[in-house]
Amino acid sequence: MLTGGQTPARIDWMPVPAEVRVRTGRFSLDSSFAVTIEGAATDRLSRACVRLMRRISDRTGLFFERESATGALPLSAPGMTVAAGREGRVALGEDESYSLEISADGIRLSAVTDIGCLRGMETVFQLLNADADASGYGFPCLTVRDRPRFQWRGLLIDASRHFMPPDVIYRNLDGMAAVKLNVLHWHLSDDQGFRVESRTFPKLHGLGSDGLFYSQEEIRRIVAYASDRGIRVVPEFDMPGHVTSWLAGYPELTHRPGPFRIERRWGVWSPAMDPTRKSTYRFLERFIGEMTGLFPDEYFHIGGDEVEGKPWMEDPDILAYMKKHGLPDAAGLQTHFTLRVQKILASHRRKMVGWDEILTPGLLSGAVIQSWRGREALVEAASRGMGAILSNGYYIDLVQPSAFHYLNDPLTPDMNLSEAEAANVLGGEATMWAELVTAETVDSRIWPRAAAIAERLWSPADVRDIGDMHRRLRSVSLSLEQAGLTHIRNRGVLMRRLAEGADTGPLETLLSAVEPVKNYRRHSMRPFTTFSPLTRIADAAVPDAEDGLLFRSLVESWLTESGADSGAEAIRRQLILWRDNHEAMLPLIRRSPMLAEIESLSSDLSEAAEFGLQAVDFRLSGRPPEKEWTDRILLRLGEMAEPRAEVELAVLEAIRKLAVQP
Amino acid sequence: MLTGGQTPARIDWMPVPAEVRVRTGRFSLDSSFAVTIEGAATDRLSRACVRLMRRISDRTGLFFERESATGALPLSAPGMTVAAGREGRVALGEDESYSLEISADGIRLSAVTDIGCLRGMETVFQLLNADADASGYGFPCLTVRDRPRFQWRGLLIDASRHFMPPDVIYRNLDGMAAVKLNVLHWHLSDDQGFRVESRTFPKLHGLGSDGLFYSQEEIRRIVAYASDRGIRVVPEFDMPGHVTSWLAGYPELTHRPGPFRIERRWGVWSPAMDPTRKSTYRFLERFIGEMTGLFPDEYFHIGGDEVEGKPWMEDPDILAYMKKHGLPDAAGLQTHFTLRVQKILASHRRKMVGWDEILTPGLLSGAVIQSWRGREALVEAASRGMGAILSNGYYIDLVQPSAFHYLNDPLTPDMNLSEAEAANVLGGEATMWAELVTAETVDSRIWPRAAAIAERLWSPADVRDIGDMHRRLRSVSLSLEQAGLTHIRNRGVLMRRLAEGADTGPLETLLSAVEPVKNYRRHSMRPFTTFSPLTRIADAAVPDAEDGLLFRSLVESWLTESGADSGAEAIRRQLILWRDNHEAMLPLIRRSPMLAEIESLSSDLSEAAEFGLQAVDFRLSGRPPEKEWTDRILLRLGEMAEPRAEVELAVLEAIRKLAVQP
Repeated sequence: MLTGGQTPARIDWMPVPAEVRVRTGRFSLDSSFAVTIEGAATDRLSRACVRLMRRISDRTGLFFERESATGALPLSAPGMTVAAGREGRVALGEDESYSLEISADGIRLSAVTDIGCLRGMETVFQLLNADADASGYGFPCLTVRDRPRFQWRGLLIDASRHFMPPDVIYRNLDGMAAVKLNVLHWHLSDDQGFRVESRTFPKLHGLGSDGLFYSQEEIRRIVAYASDRGIRVVPEFDMPGHVTSWLAGYPELTHRPGPFRIERRWGVWSPAMDPTRKSTYRFLERFIGEMTGLFPDEYFHIGGDEVEGKPWMEDPDILAYMKKHGLPDAAGLQTHFTLRVQKILASHRRKMVGWDEILTPGLLSGAVIQSWRGREALVEAASRGMGAILSNGYYIDLVQPSAFHYLNDPLTPDMNLSEAEAANVLGGEATMWAELVTAETVDSRIWPRAAAIAERLWSPADVRDIGDMHRRLRSVSLSLEQAGLTHIRNRGVLMRRLAEGADTGPLETLLSAVEPVKNYRRHSMRPFTTFSPLTRIADAAVPDAEDGLLFRSLVESWLTESGADSGAEAIRRQLILWRDNHEAMLPLIRRSPMLAEIESLSSDLSEAAEFGLQAVDFRLSGRPPEKEWTDRILLRLGEMAEPRAEVELAVLEAIRKLAVQP
Repeated sequence: MLTGGQTPARIDWMPVPAEVRVRTGRFSLDSSFAVTIEGAATDRLSRACVRLMRRISDRTGLFFERESATGALPLSAPGMTVAAGREGRVALGEDESYSLEISADGIRLSAVTDIGCLRGMETVFQLLNADADASGYGFPCLTVRDRPRFQWRGLLIDASRHFMPPDVIYRNLDGMAAVKLNVLHWHLSDDQGFRVESRTFPKLHGLGSDGLFYSQEEIRRIVAYASDRGIRVVPEFDMPGHVTSWLAGYPELTHRPGPFRIERRWGVWSPAMDPTRKSTYRFLERFIGEMTGLFPDEYFHIGGDEVEGKPWMEDPDILAYMKKHGLPDAAGLQTHFTLRVQKILASHRRKMVGWDEILTPGLLSGAVIQSWRGREALVEAASRGMGAILSNGYYIDLVQPSAFHYLNDPLTPDMNLSEAEAANVLGGEATMWAELVTAETVDSRIWPRAAAIAERLWSPADVRDIGDMHRRLRSVSLSLEQAGLTHIRNRGVLMRRLAEGADTGPLETLLSAVEPVKNYRRHSMRPFTTFSPLTRIADAAVPDAEDGLLFRSLVESWLTESGADSGAEAIRRQLILWRDNHEAMLPLIRRSPMLAEIESLSSDLSEAAEFGLQAVDFRLSGRPPEKEWTDRILLRLGEMAEPRAEVELAVLEAIRKLAVQP
């Protein structure tokens, strides 16, 4: 059996299956291809088969003779059979395993549940490629036995900070399905917007959303669409903090004097629900009752993060209540609130999920803890017998490299968990917080990096070869584009806007070496609000700038393989491109005022590339540079590291390595 | 006063306003900019102002200090005031005129109705550009008095043949608003799909749509979105022919034996409603009653095209009915049907629109005729006192060049209409039939060409300089992309899929000289169905292939200006690019089976370009080629004109002109 570290070079799947045996030979596609369902022919499976045929047809240009996915094939017809034992439940812990057998005669996919079949169909689609001689398309012969390592593999989409129209959600569900993610964690309310139509409390969306919200029908459709792809939808309504948008319509939920309006700035805001009023719980009882009618998943996320206790502590009524109930501090008061809400949820047959702040000593079991500030809460929750999911290290909004997220494992030996405790670690979730993204750019912050996280959560723990992951991720990224995602195409849109109609070539070259500043740094550089434009260079730039990544790995291998000439040539080619690019950028900068902010950055890239070229020449000549040269270069490279326009050059460290002679 | 033929070079608006006076000076934008509403502050206008500020911010990267569009500005604040006299009705004939005054101090926009203000705001946005020295953004000082030439300026979107999800409609409404189109003609049912949720007759969408339909809520939202942009929505339910999808659920609507299933092939199909049964009209009475509840527009389109009379004429019951009612033939029977439906519509306070087939001698007045097979019906309808709209010559699905559509005028002197009759010519509609497009490609068949049609329908008749139109259209196309349209970005998606992950540069160069075959020719080359892939070269290719267009105009001017050297140089540069491209294409073709079908086309482009280079050399040298050379070249160019893969080389005629020496 092969494992992921040894994925054959022409197979670009992600996540890598648990067990694989590759054989010689191929199953060749032609227009007689069709998919036949055996066993449980669920509606979900039928629709998935129609979609698969459509996708294969789109990908290959083949005009299939069969249009339908159902009905037995004549024995002579080559094709694919899909056999599910039973209809799966879209619920935590459902069986998602599948077996796949591809021989020269056809494809056979079988699974305990139709959801397992769906997972296998994504593997099949990823295996489709051109024959080596490009005479047609087909699939390599192989056997796969596959199953997920973790059962909770999520993506959080924040639709509050910037509203994400249904189309964004639909296409991201398709992307999730493609890489076998199975939980959409939908962050639906926050200080900056309440995004669900409430018929019980219509001022929630009426005064809390600027008209940008999901109707109940849209919610139902999206939940059904997700379910059709074997994806759970876990709604999050953040409470008792992060609730300014609720208070715009219902100020009585807090103890503080109103009126309130939707918050337009980012950050943590102090308005919070009043946990001491009965009316708060009566409201939540009715609200949760309404929402559980929309969201069938067994889990319901109540947020619970970043509550500022101070305003509570300044209110005499609240202090009196705390004294009466023996609550020592704000954390105790929040626990009091959390337990009340947990009871309400239980009465609606829902289990509670919350951020790690809710994990106080007083919290009873039965909750799932989402660990974001570190992994301490993950370990504590698992030890205390509670379900735990990891998000720390998966904050994709912070534009860290794929490799960083990829190596972040929810379950490592140093956590010292017993087997039973380890079983409480359910998985993880990538989080797409939306302060600095719009519908136009959000995909570029999720994809393709979320696919690397999906692999971490699905594939065996020993699948962790970064180079192999990067190679596959390039291909998977293109495939995700075919699934409808806009992470590649919309970059062109941003660049064309920035270039004022001129050729975007030089801009593309510049951006290939530039990345947005990481973590929360961008917020410290300008005061962003809901209304700020997110159409600048920093928004067109993406983490893992591709040429930058390739360049760093070229430099790495050239330096460790002590100077093979071919490596040097590739490095020089890239450096020449960058060195000459500033001259090509200048006419663009001269016509587009939006580019003025990166003029010095562009010129720095050019200068840094020139240093790199000199450094390569020194190395090739075997004649080391004067110390003065090295000092000067290192000084300048240090200066160039200063971000401008909220982006930074992503190749300086590699050039520094070239410059520092052994 | 300037008119459109003299649009200043740096103003790329479309449609050109009726009256313009450009002055010197600019109004410069800075972050203090805000829009203030005076007069009727309708909700529509407030939302439009918020959108305008958002768009300007996105376009310029400016962080505006003011977030709101309402409330008076302090006197010192530079900005824009918008003044509407009253709320406009989204209805045929509403006043859409506006006046615009831009001085160095600010922008003043005023109009009789808020809809007129919306039209003017699009002009304002089109005027926004970078300062000549790129120090910032601003607007040229000028005065505009503008009003439409025609009141009915439509775009038909066929959502039946391929379903077009709501997102397609939303973004196209934004595109329509940008170029002042004011009617979405929504083709909602046909043999291949019934696309509206009917609660009265749920089997219409239940069995007629494969689950791909608009819910009533979606319809209401889309109609409201359109209304917010001053755009009418005219639904079309085609009858009595083109109804196979209705019959899947309600076979009793026809006289022929069922069962029926959704038609998967294209073409004209014979199933039609039975116009002799009372039950047909009872059904339509209830159906139209339900649909007029969804679509508030005064006009309701009943299709009426391409009814095959033969099956009626073979039914003895129908023949008996015809005899009894004195109906001489199938056309008479259809008129009988049309008049009955017109009565039903009138009882719901709706006016009837139909394709030109409904214009029979027996048709009473009060209908609007949409002329598609020619313009005879347009003239006849106008003479008979009926409203008339032109679609003949605006069939954008047939991938004709922009210039062809642009010069097609709904009202020309040779129509010999009196002034009163001419007033019946209400305007025109571009028609986007969807047999050969999906949501992925549809925008590329609509835009930017529909903008040229929009100008024909809005601007004065004498605005018809093709070169100027092409220049502006390039810029407008980029601006339409900013409005959310995917005509440019999705081309990249198709090319990346075709290139199997390789650099798409050579493919782009090839496609710059290639266009899809025109008119209905593609259908004759393969049997297309609902399930056919539309992801091939012919789908990535677009009409008006840009470099082909530029090349043709370069050749044209070089040949007429009898050989300026600079022209020759530009022509040679382009030809060298094309000549060398086949070598770059070969590795792509060797890896992508989908590209095999254009290998000979690619090689032909290379060969044709070489001929062109030789021809230019002959001309430059002043030494004409041998007759043998010319004969050989012309023979080969003739052979190359043969389409392959449903595309053709769009530069052969220009190369032929170069080759044929004077």
